[in-house]
Amino acid sequence: MTEVKIENADREAGKEFMPKFDSNGLLTAVVTNAETNTVLMVAMMDQLAIARTRETGIAHFHSRSRGRLWMKGETSGNTLTVKRILVDCDQDALILECEPAGPTCHTGASDCFYRELVDEGLKPKSD
Amino acid sequence: MTEVKIENADREAGKEFMPKFDSNGLLTAVVTNAETNTVLMVAMMDQLAIARTRETGIAHFHSRSRGRLWMKGETSGNTLTVKRILVDCDQDALILECEPAGPTCHTGASDCFYRELVDEGLKPKSD
Repeated sequence: MTEVKIENADREAGKEFMPKFDSNGLLTAVVTNAETNTVLMVAMMDQLAIARTRETGIAHFHSRSRGRLWMKGETSGNTLTVKRILVDCDQDALILECEPAGPTCHTGASDCFYRELVDEGLKPKSD
Repeated sequence: MTEVKIENADREAGKEFMPKFDSNGLLTAVVTNAETNTVLMVAMMDQLAIARTRETGIAHFHSRSRGRLWMKGETSGNTLTVKRILVDCDQDALILECEPAGPTCHTGASDCFYRELVDEGLKPKSD
């Protein structure tokens, strides 16, 4: 058994948090509405964003466009209060179950997934 | 206004599907249970995985470990039938709302997010 396999087994079954970052030091965070389960947004987190989120209880991400730590809502006020963090099997993705202070998407939509992919292209999501 | 900004505005408000891939030609796909809204797994898709998923109605991804197109369930039989695809504001993330044929996680768990991050580390998710 290789070292990598041992590490994977530890990651999948262990009680230790060992986030698996990609070559850029990032992993994927899926933000859901803790009450409705709706997926609000997807963003990237690095070690610092995870630490700051756990310390403050407010969702922080790594903004690739800004190249820095970013507290969601730092300008808009539409912060995300984190109720629970879930970790996936290989620890390269997190779910942040949140209580949003306002619309999550920077476009003003309540969440970022306001369109549906159909044969012809995109159309507003039907509920 | 720069070309990049025009492109972003088109991506956010337009009716054209213009997936935004990262430097590896990948974007993030969040798989949810179409009935319960639960997040089942997170995976990566490339152009080919998106095309094959749309053609067949069965979720395909790009497996970074295998380095190839991967139909979820190709060995386990636990396929994901795609009911709807949602696209986010900047078109670099998709939600695949699916009907799972069996447990989604390769560990046998119904979904990959079976653990919760607490102060001490990881513990089984409480429902």
